[in-house]
Amino acid sequence: MYDIIVAGAGHAGCEAALAAARSGCSCLLITTDLSSIARMSCNPAIGGVAKGQITREIDALGGEMARAIDANGIQFRMLNRSKGPAMHSPRAQADKAMYSLYMRKVIERETNIDLLQDTVVGIESHEGVFQGARISSGRVIAGGAAILCCGTFLNGLIHIGMNHYDGGRTTAEPPVRGLTEDLLRLGFVAGRLKTGTPPRIDARSVDYSRVESQQGDAEPSAFSFSKSLDRNRRQVSCYITKTTPQTHDILKKGFSRSPLFTGKVQGIGPRYCPSVEDKICRFPDKESHHIFLEPEGIDTNEMYVNGFSTSLPEDIQEEGLRSIPGLSNAKIIRPGYAIEYDYFFPYQIKGTLETKLIENLYFAGQINGTSGYEEAAAQGLMAGINASLKARSRPPINLRRSEAYIGVLIDDIITKETLEPYRMFTSSAEHRLHLRHDNADVRLVTFGYEAGLVQHETYHLCLSKIEKINHLKALCANTRLQPEEINRMLAKSGYAHVDVSHHVAALLKRPGITLELILAESEAFRNSVHQITIDRSIYEQVDIDLKYEGYLKRDLLMAEKISRLESLRIPPRFNYDGISGLSNEGKEKLKKHKPETIGVASRIPGVSPSDISVLTVRLGR
Amino acid sequence: MYDIIVAGAGHAGCEAALAAARSGCSCLLITTDLSSIARMSCNPAIGGVAKGQITREIDALGGEMARAIDANGIQFRMLNRSKGPAMHSPRAQADKAMYSLYMRKVIERETNIDLLQDTVVGIESHEGVFQGARISSGRVIAGGAAILCCGTFLNGLIHIGMNHYDGGRTTAEPPVRGLTEDLLRLGFVAGRLKTGTPPRIDARSVDYSRVESQQGDAEPSAFSFSKSLDRNRRQVSCYITKTTPQTHDILKKGFSRSPLFTGKVQGIGPRYCPSVEDKICRFPDKESHHIFLEPEGIDTNEMYVNGFSTSLPEDIQEEGLRSIPGLSNAKIIRPGYAIEYDYFFPYQIKGTLETKLIENLYFAGQINGTSGYEEAAAQGLMAGINASLKARSRPPINLRRSEAYIGVLIDDIITKETLEPYRMFTSSAEHRLHLRHDNADVRLVTFGYEAGLVQHETYHLCLSKIEKINHLKALCANTRLQPEEINRMLAKSGYAHVDVSHHVAALLKRPGITLELILAESEAFRNSVHQITIDRSIYEQVDIDLKYEGYLKRDLLMAEKISRLESLRIPPRFNYDGISGLSNEGKEKLKKHKPETIGVASRIPGVSPSDISVLTVRLGR
Ligand SMILES: Cc1cc2nc3c(=O)[nH]c(=O)nc-3n(C[C@H](O)[C@H](O)[C@H](O)COP(=O)(O)OP(=O)(O)OC[C@H]3O[C@@H](n4cnc5c(N)ncnc54)[C@H](O)[C@@H]3O)c2cc1C
Ligand SMILES: Cc1cc2nc3c(=O)[nH]c(=O)nc-3n(C[C@H](O)[C@H](O)[C@H](O)COP(=O)(O)OP(=O)(O)OC[C@H]3O[C@@H](n4cnc5c(N)ncnc54)[C@H](O)[C@@H]3O)c2cc1C
Repeated sequence: MYDIIVAGAGHAGCEAALAAARSGCSCLLITTDLSSIARMSCNPAIGGVAKGQITREIDALGGEMARAIDANGIQFRMLNRSKGPAMHSPRAQADKAMYSLYMRKVIERETNIDLLQDTVVGIESHEGVFQGARISSGRVIAGGAAILCCGTFLNGLIHIGMNHYDGGRTTAEPPVRGLTEDLLRLGFVAGRLKTGTPPRIDARSVDYSRVESQQGDAEPSAFSFSKSLDRNRRQVSCYITKTTPQTHDILKKGFSRSPLFTGKVQGIGPRYCPSVEDKICRFPDKESHHIFLEPEGIDTNEMYVNGFSTSLPEDIQEEGLRSIPGLSNAKIIRPGYAIEYDYFFPYQIKGTLETKLIENLYFAGQINGTSGYEEAAAQGLMAGINASLKARSRPPINLRRSEAYIGVLIDDIITKETLEPYRMFTSSAEHRLHLRHDNADVRLVTFGYEAGLVQHETYHLCLSKIEKINHLKALCANTRLQPEEINRMLAKSGYAHVDVSHHVAALLKRPGITLELILAESEAFRNSVHQITIDRSIYEQVDIDLKYEGYLKRDLLMAEKISRLESLRIPPRFNYDGISGLSNEGKEKLKKHKPETIGVASRIPGVSPSDISVLTVRLGR
Repeated sequence: MYDIIVAGAGHAGCEAALAAARSGCSCLLITTDLSSIARMSCNPAIGGVAKGQITREIDALGGEMARAIDANGIQFRMLNRSKGPAMHSPRAQADKAMYSLYMRKVIERETNIDLLQDTVVGIESHEGVFQGARISSGRVIAGGAAILCCGTFLNGLIHIGMNHYDGGRTTAEPPVRGLTEDLLRLGFVAGRLKTGTPPRIDARSVDYSRVESQQGDAEPSAFSFSKSLDRNRRQVSCYITKTTPQTHDILKKGFSRSPLFTGKVQGIGPRYCPSVEDKICRFPDKESHHIFLEPEGIDTNEMYVNGFSTSLPEDIQEEGLRSIPGLSNAKIIRPGYAIEYDYFFPYQIKGTLETKLIENLYFAGQINGTSGYEEAAAQGLMAGINASLKARSRPPINLRRSEAYIGVLIDDIITKETLEPYRMFTSSAEHRLHLRHDNADVRLVTFGYEAGLVQHETYHLCLSKIEKINHLKALCANTRLQPEEINRMLAKSGYAHVDVSHHVAALLKRPGITLELILAESEAFRNSVHQITIDRSIYEQVDIDLKYEGYLKRDLLMAEKISRLESLRIPPRFNYDGISGLSNEGKEKLKKHKPETIGVASRIPGVSPSDISVLTVRLGR
């Protein structure tokens, strides 16, 4: 018998299995196809706005995604460098084939993981407790817990124009049948979502004189805190072009054969990541939309046409593409399409990702109605961690909204009514100034260590980093610089000169004044700083922390207030009917969601502040 | 419009597309899944007895398989070194994942090949001439010719115990539906075959103290004539163990749930490559069968259990495996299974692999009822060559039985009634002493050059090699060695001493006396030889050619006699009914097969020598 069974070796499943295994549990990873482990279904990139932060958090917690992209990235860029630090987001193009092989090797090297090529088609439980996973032959494999990471495979249906095909991800990968029905039988509630992908074209058919090239950073920065990247590593270019009014006219011709517009697709698609036909419909005045051409690997001609996700008929796709500058001879290697699939409304899971209905059964990834590799991986990691902690009778880790994007993600899906695929945005994170990519290790390493995923050595390195940061902050707060030391610097940045000495910390509050700048000006201060550390990533963090000290403090206060609600637990079988004073809508939502804490309850849409007061009083505060 | 459309990027399809493209045709390669190009469905090895020879022939003709295995081989062995030269056969274990990626890259680098991820579901023809290939959306892609290389995918059905699943190769790869039916509609005749594969186990679960290790050659020899292998390249071990009487008892317990024995599988399987349950049934007195454990790659735990192909239920597979020495803790990563699929009786194709029914439509690989990667690749190569030659209005290349294993293969399948999967054996090649792996380049380079696949430089290098061989043979025939030069050598090899001088050629006829031995003894002769060449592969060839000169000459005479029949063509619409003197069975077979030459007619089972005389007279000889 295995401690933990993971179904599906996608981005969620890989992290789940690795987390469970690395923290000491015996783990069986069952997946339909061993040659598609951690395959990227859609865009050939990891990271980006909010997603880059998640990837760094995964690394801080001891997950694998960051290391995988560091090893297999073919172009690295820090997005939004010109914006505030909350927005800085690492992103990298990946070699899809190599990324998948890398992850397979990592998994194969893990002694606690056994692999099985098969499909989980059912769940066995006894009195509400998970017993085993049923595979395609009907055999039941016993396990202490299971994590279902089925991605888009449950009853997947692919649409191109008015044609549809069975498919779990592509038409070459069969959907999973029976598992949805089995979970329905157990009492779970499922919905239907859809997402889409653009055509892939032959890179040799692009006219590069008519598109703009976009290079990687000259100094690529790693996703993993334990790595740095060679600046000479081979990076490839992406290319930018845009749709034209002619493109839009051509695509419109196909609307009568669009599975989206004719009602053929029933699943609900993501608003934020719309198909090109959606964009044309929703923004009729926009004459043009950006198109990014992204290579799918370092040594392949397949090119991903980012921004051109579509399920229009193939003839329209081709004609439309060819009206885009640089693509007049574009050859399609595979057409774009939409895919519909089953998901389970995530109000059915707890903050640990365990289902409320069946103990020791967890859901992670797209099966919870999210979309995106990073979102999936983050859930897989947390489900793996929590299943493993539970197996070892240890308390779970519930990341708070103020601690991690991952906390926001999980809290959002379990409280919000996810009717369209959920994707992480910086705007969803009210504490985003604190939840930066640069400090993910500082924020989360202790959780990773407690979960058993972060090695002793790494942990202590990070603790010493935290100490240095605090030491340096104190130094900045206590060091006064004389006017003669700072006026040159102030002048350069366009500030008036000063007559009295200033604390470094105060100077840093001024926009444009950075720690690096001050270090360059004051030799004495530089010497003291160098005695603490010469690590520039620490300077950067201190800089941001001090610059935004005010905001961050207020943020912290708010977080603490909320956290008090968060620790107020609601008993599992709490009887809402017996409470007078709850609004009708509030009562209904609370009965459906069965929130675990007052904090979670307070974020369920339809539950009012007055409902929360009533509850808080009732629970004895 | 493309000159040539290839359906299916398996071993046949890759060679077909490369041959067509390299000889100058524009080519579209349509395949269901771009991530499974040239995937090895079953054993992780290329070459072996007869198959190694075919691989060398593919190289001589300008195909890719030999180079692919040279690049991705992880263990190289020359089989049967102790037997006669006709039996020497190169074989190598492959890293499956890397082999597939390599082939994909080679194809992507070919300017004349476009790739399309889709499935061919029908054929359009007009008055018996191919017009275009219909893909899944219903769209027809126009082409001058098409080569169908569908492998085991046509209506594939997978059996494990009494369960069955849709699958074209594994259950993760859907079968192709509709194409068989479309070809039936056009008048083709299909049959049903089956083959099987053993379970894969976790290499970490093997007890290596109880199995025998089998290493690669210390001096690995390349498959490609243009390569030599680094002797320090990393090679892995395989391992040998065997079934026990207990294994057989366990497996027998499962016979009542065997899809083969209960009549559930209708397709006919290969006798020569039987499942382990077949072996136990057919050889009830044998207490044990060999089992070879072969790694599926250099960096994976997946291990192929060669000799244990089975479709018994999974529980029986596991129990059976665990009764084998070294496997008592074996963990199955994927179970063995049988697969049934449609094929087209190959009497429906000509020697060029073009179908007789639809002009410019070719079939290659497992769709013709053969089995094996090398057999498939060879057919793909020849179909690609011939479709391309036809597109360029040039005469086809029909390799004779005396010229190549590939000639034997194609001749066998188009004349014999293939009722079980056809596999190449040395015993099928009556000229096998001539059809050796070492001389494949000498035998075939001119064909490859004429087809446009062998580069000018390679061709001329080979011509000069041939010249050297002839030069060296003449030298051996004319050089007399004195008794004092040869007696020491004769004594060493156990021969009586001689009193008179002997020609080198005559000495070589004696078993055990090799050219290398003579070179070591006679300095004068060595000096003359070194003036011609120091290439040891040439010495080896001269040695064999002279040693077996008598046989080879007789062989040649026979081949010439047959070749006269071979060139006697029978008109396409020849009216057999109008000929008196033909046997009834002969007439029936001739009408069904419509052989293109008297040679082919003479090898059709049921056509008697007297029928051939009647025909020969009638055709004007
Ligand atoms: C066509 C398409 C377009 C997409 N477009 C976007 C996009 O534009 N933006 C975006 O952010 N995301 C997009 N996605 C989603 C993104 O790919 C997923 O969010 C992410 O891959 C989810 O990861 P996962 O681990 O949950 O599942 P997946 O990556 O889907 O992996 C699931 C794995 O589990 C296996 N499996 C499934 N069920 C079982 C079972 N029962 N037993 C055994 N194995 C099983 C599958 O074979 C697969 O290997 C798209 C996905 C698809 C298919
Ligand atoms: C389970 C199993 C066990 C086997 N066991 C043995 C064995 O023991 N010994 C042995 O010698 N051989 C064995 N084989 C056979 C060996 O794998 C094949 O002989 C060889 O791979 C055939 O090569 P191929 O190119 O004809 O087809 P395949 O290698 O099968 O490749 C066919 C390719 O074409 C694609 N395709 C198929 N139809 C279409 C279409 N209509 N449109 C687009 N793409 C299409 C498929 O996706 C696939 O990529 C086995 C095969 C299987 C599946």
